[in-house]
Amino acid sequence: MATVATTVVFDQHGPPDRVLRQDQMPLKPPEDNEVEVDMLAAPINPSDINLVEGTYGIKPDLPAVAGLEGVGRVTKVGPAVTSLAVSDWVIPASTGKAFGTWRTAAVCAAEDLLKVRSDAPVEYAATVAVNPCTAYRMLEDFAHLEEGDVVVQNGATSMVGLAVIQLARERGLHSVNIIRDRPNFEEKAAELKALGASVVLTEERAQSPEGKQAMKGFPPAKLGLNCVGGSAATAVTKLLGTGATLVTYGGMSMKPVTISTSYFIFKDITCKGFWVSRWAQEHSAEERSKMIDYLLGLARDKKLTFNFEKTPFTDFDFALKKALGKEGFTAGKQLLVFK
Amino acid sequence: MATVATTVVFDQHGPPDRVLRQDQMPLKPPEDNEVEVDMLAAPINPSDINLVEGTYGIKPDLPAVAGLEGVGRVTKVGPAVTSLAVSDWVIPASTGKAFGTWRTAAVCAAEDLLKVRSDAPVEYAATVAVNPCTAYRMLEDFAHLEEGDVVVQNGATSMVGLAVIQLARERGLHSVNIIRDRPNFEEKAAELKALGASVVLTEERAQSPEGKQAMKGFPPAKLGLNCVGGSAATAVTKLLGTGATLVTYGGMSMKPVTISTSYFIFKDITCKGFWVSRWAQEHSAEERSKMIDYLLGLARDKKLTFNFEKTPFTDFDFALKKALGKEGFTAGKQLLVFK
Repeated sequence: MATVATTVVFDQHGPPDRVLRQDQMPLKPPEDNEVEVDMLAAPINPSDINLVEGTYGIKPDLPAVAGLEGVGRVTKVGPAVTSLAVSDWVIPASTGKAFGTWRTAAVCAAEDLLKVRSDAPVEYAATVAVNPCTAYRMLEDFAHLEEGDVVVQNGATSMVGLAVIQLARERGLHSVNIIRDRPNFEEKAAELKALGASVVLTEERAQSPEGKQAMKGFPPAKLGLNCVGGSAATAVTKLLGTGATLVTYGGMSMKPVTISTSYFIFKDITCKGFWVSRWAQEHSAEERSKMIDYLLGLARDKKLTFNFEKTPFTDFDFALKKALGKEGFTAGKQLLVFK
Repeated sequence: MATVATTVVFDQHGPPDRVLRQDQMPLKPPEDNEVEVDMLAAPINPSDINLVEGTYGIKPDLPAVAGLEGVGRVTKVGPAVTSLAVSDWVIPASTGKAFGTWRTAAVCAAEDLLKVRSDAPVEYAATVAVNPCTAYRMLEDFAHLEEGDVVVQNGATSMVGLAVIQLARERGLHSVNIIRDRPNFEEKAAELKALGASVVLTEERAQSPEGKQAMKGFPPAKLGLNCVGGSAATAVTKLLGTGATLVTYGGMSMKPVTISTSYFIFKDITCKGFWVSRWAQEHSAEERSKMIDYLLGLARDKKLTFNFEKTPFTDFDFALKKALGKEGFTAGKQLLVFK
């Protein structure tokens, strides 16, 4: 009997709570190299919001099913499929292809999927491809970091930020973390330190003499990570050492990155960007698979932990409101769970 | 008989026309590895102004003789000197050491000097080390440029800008040049085109659809050069192709470099700085010498030309006012000539 998938689609770009709608999509049984997958879990990430708004780096053909990442379980395989078997866990082979993970089931080519280990909790398999991979690559690819070295980041409470803290701890690196000032700053700082943060500063403190003071006893920071922009990017830059690299991977404040001329000329700062989808396009599936296995291994061993707020896919509207900050306090990453 | 040098010194940082004063400095005859040099010519560069103001990347011990570059002629050599002979032309071995070229004569270690060819006009030997070397290195070191490739720059009428246009032409590269709007824009554009500029745009036109239009028919620009900052840096960035590098080597507008997040993430733009003094520190005298010989060879062959306004060193105050823009129209680089 043919499966009918429930999907969340958009016909035009705009505010997600206005343009997203639920739809039904009958699926043809998998042929040749195709497989059928039941989705298990999918997050709501800032990049998902941007994709719908039309401000993301890729523009899918419309109408499109939303959702850039998630994990599914193979339920049927076409006759020519050799790389996957029923009950394998799979994620989209590319986060840059707008697979459309916000749906109960899908039929697609086996090559559009990447098999992942199934011994980590499902919520980690659903969310490993965007945020932890971004954190991992930024620590690997932009500076030659050795044990005892320092990475400075803003947006440290974001999922990438939390992954950076924990991956830095695993590598013996120190992380200096800049977060917004908030009533429960000390409590949040203690949480980050429990995950392995060496230093936690408000943006204001980071830009005061206290910031420079906090860097004493560490070698000059070789790497800065920025997902905020504006003054929060400046705060990171001021704590970097000569010759360091500032990597921008997000712009939550909607403000640009502003760097004074003398930082470029006399402090020899390099500014670059990172986009995990471009990385995946430019590297082999094997390399990506190895990284994802490593990260899911850490998750299985509880060395990489996040808080999730799980919402049944049937309550999609509620999860979206939470993700958009329109439904009060959020205790963690919004995760859609299926069945 | 011992030489007495006339020097221009500063005892404290501040506005050059306030803190610079003339002084007399008796010179001891050169001993061992020392040589005595009569200065022939020295320019007044923006970096000289910044050094005196205290906004430059190096801070000499005060009081200090001003002037970072210039050419002299060896007049006496100490008994142990083998690398230089009387009547050799020499320039400071490092622009980062504050040699103090604004003086009639100097005695210094032979190793603090670099011999240069003397078959190019003296004004080119006096000015080759900062601006033409900066232009040369930026075209060599930040992008893999091949014949037909494009470099985009602002501040194209500066000495570095003019050198970029001519060196790009020598290498078969296209230069897209952004300059301030001015009453005689067409005349200035024609001047730059006569030197080899492919395109000349005002900042406003560069940021309008005309800018993108001007880039048609060229491959995507791999390199941008910025010595202005602010909106002029943005104007360059907007004309760059995916994966390009923007190099900042000056900040004439006193405004920082502002780059939107999406340029880093989706357009993969890298921003770096260039400082010729750091380059010289990090590379061998041989490599520097080879570059300078090449550039002076171009000058000798009239393939690298600039306009100079020569002022006798005895009229230093007038030349300084011209360089500071306090003495009306200036037809070229201010050059102090000695005797």
